[in-house]
Amino acid sequence: MNYIVKDENALFYECGYSCDNAIFLKLGDDSFFITDGRYTVDAKENIKNTRVIQSQNLIQEVRFLIRKSNIKKLYYDPKEWNTYEFNLLKNKLNRVSFFAKVDFSKLKRAIKSNDEIKIIKQAVKLGRDGFKKFAKYLKNSGELKSEEFLQYKLKSILSSFGELELSFEPIVAINKNSAKPHATPSKGVLQNGDLILVDAGVKYKRYCSDRTRSSLFNNKITFKENQKFSKKKRQKIYDTVLKAHDEAITKAKSGMRAFEIDKIARDVIDKAGFAKFFVHSTGHGVGLNIHEYPFISAKSDMLIEDHMVFTIEPGIYIPNEFGIRIEDMIVMKNGVARIL
Amino acid sequence: MNYIVKDENALFYECGYSCDNAIFLKLGDDSFFITDGRYTVDAKENIKNTRVIQSQNLIQEVRFLIRKSNIKKLYYDPKEWNTYEFNLLKNKLNRVSFFAKVDFSKLKRAIKSNDEIKIIKQAVKLGRDGFKKFAKYLKNSGELKSEEFLQYKLKSILSSFGELELSFEPIVAINKNSAKPHATPSKGVLQNGDLILVDAGVKYKRYCSDRTRSSLFNNKITFKENQKFSKKKRQKIYDTVLKAHDEAITKAKSGMRAFEIDKIARDVIDKAGFAKFFVHSTGHGVGLNIHEYPFISAKSDMLIEDHMVFTIEPGIYIPNEFGIRIEDMIVMKNGVARIL
Repeated sequence: MNYIVKDENALFYECGYSCDNAIFLKLGDDSFFITDGRYTVDAKENIKNTRVIQSQNLIQEVRFLIRKSNIKKLYYDPKEWNTYEFNLLKNKLNRVSFFAKVDFSKLKRAIKSNDEIKIIKQAVKLGRDGFKKFAKYLKNSGELKSEEFLQYKLKSILSSFGELELSFEPIVAINKNSAKPHATPSKGVLQNGDLILVDAGVKYKRYCSDRTRSSLFNNKITFKENQKFSKKKRQKIYDTVLKAHDEAITKAKSGMRAFEIDKIARDVIDKAGFAKFFVHSTGHGVGLNIHEYPFISAKSDMLIEDHMVFTIEPGIYIPNEFGIRIEDMIVMKNGVARIL
Repeated sequence: MNYIVKDENALFYECGYSCDNAIFLKLGDDSFFITDGRYTVDAKENIKNTRVIQSQNLIQEVRFLIRKSNIKKLYYDPKEWNTYEFNLLKNKLNRVSFFAKVDFSKLKRAIKSNDEIKIIKQAVKLGRDGFKKFAKYLKNSGELKSEEFLQYKLKSILSSFGELELSFEPIVAINKNSAKPHATPSKGVLQNGDLILVDAGVKYKRYCSDRTRSSLFNNKITFKENQKFSKKKRQKIYDTVLKAHDEAITKAKSGMRAFEIDKIARDVIDKAGFAKFFVHSTGHGVGLNIHEYPFISAKSDMLIEDHMVFTIEPGIYIPNEFGIRIEDMIVMKNGVARIL
């Protein structure tokens, strides 16, 4: 299969190196990495089984290589190319048929190798360590810190003060704000007895981790799964979400379709009477991208297979009151889900 | 003119609000902001002269609005649309001609309003304050901090510990690393007598600032323009870059073409014998995006006009030795350039 790749993570997956201005081209048995002068030295040192070509005009160089190769078919991901660049690419290359294959790199990446799983495990461990350190910070920091400041602190701690990259802009949400699945931090301050939701992850060797906890804030705060809230409604909802999370993980099996796993979590929440407050899907794949295949949603009929890595993250969100979400990453191994 | 906009900054420019999943549509006198349920409340509170429409399928909604409007022509930016979404958009809308207009939002934004200039001034001031605080930190911190750690510190200080967003991932480069215009931070440590290059900016009300200084590190470090290096070659190159920077600013006039301003800086460096070490263009516009029109390069014949805001940032890079860059933002007013 001849194909062309442009997305940074897709580039990295193909040849172990990437940068923000490059194109990877697979023509028969030959692999090319075309980039500009800023990156060629680095690329040559780090790349595997791929010829590095320096050019000031990547698309022109790609057209030249395609023409020289005499290929007839080329696959591309239509989400990777804007219409401007795609027109430059295929202009007058009439002999070549361009086949659109949506997300073809992400689809390849849904099943992880043993090496990838090892790396992801380490990312998850580093993320978990960050949560522990953040809990320790919260215990000793007293109250009345704003969400904004706490998010800044979380970023400092998770990144080990700049050493690790984060998987995404982390969420720190208190009480009402936790009722928004994608809360942005406010100036609202953390007080004793508040509910604090933390959703965050770090990268290790470019692979992401992702985790969410919803905890009671006081001077004994932990991000462990057993949480005791003084308010009855919070406890009931917490227990429901935890049950949905646990059942989805226990019952997920290779050979199921993704929507079946979503349904396991959704049924628990439904039965407790909160169906309409579980406003998103149960999970998503994680790898080089923070959101990858498989998507664990009611609409996804993707086959679940061994070596897939994804999140299980049910949630219940009561508008203007609070939200609870509990998220872990799992890997499918020998037919069952194991928490990473 | 009927047009469609998708880029976040372009959305904000049209209606004073934006989010990561929205489309703006101008059909005759009507303006529409189409977004999903996560953002409609926020959008309605913040948007100006624009109808907010909630939809789970933005493109489908846009197609519906276009069909209802009976328009015949629609302008779009071919860089804003990937081929996948663009095909969904125009599929079977045969009555409508789609006209590609590259960068049309960025082109509109090249000339700033008085209000925008005021906001940018404030962003520049906040950035300058950050440089001062970083110099103070460096003065008192002693030596032997790594570039990586210094970048982390710079980010903390510039952002006022999370309160301000940064314009981009800032550069802190020492000696050899400063010879790369886009250096990524290393584990190399800062020592007395080193050259330290800092390129950074902050956002204020979403508008960016951008500034570079190249300074001698010791316990009296400043980011002021007068720098005294003990090494002769460094001083000579510093003085040349400063002269190129100053002449470009003094001689830039409204009515010139962008390449003429580039040439002023380039000629100074050329005359000093360093032409081949000035490997990038002299500057770029700054606004909602960190890189906007006008581009001050040898290839750009854009007319320079009053109320344009751009950087002047000549540099000389001696591979494996060091690099010097000095960058300020200017605004064209009453025919001349004023440093912001």
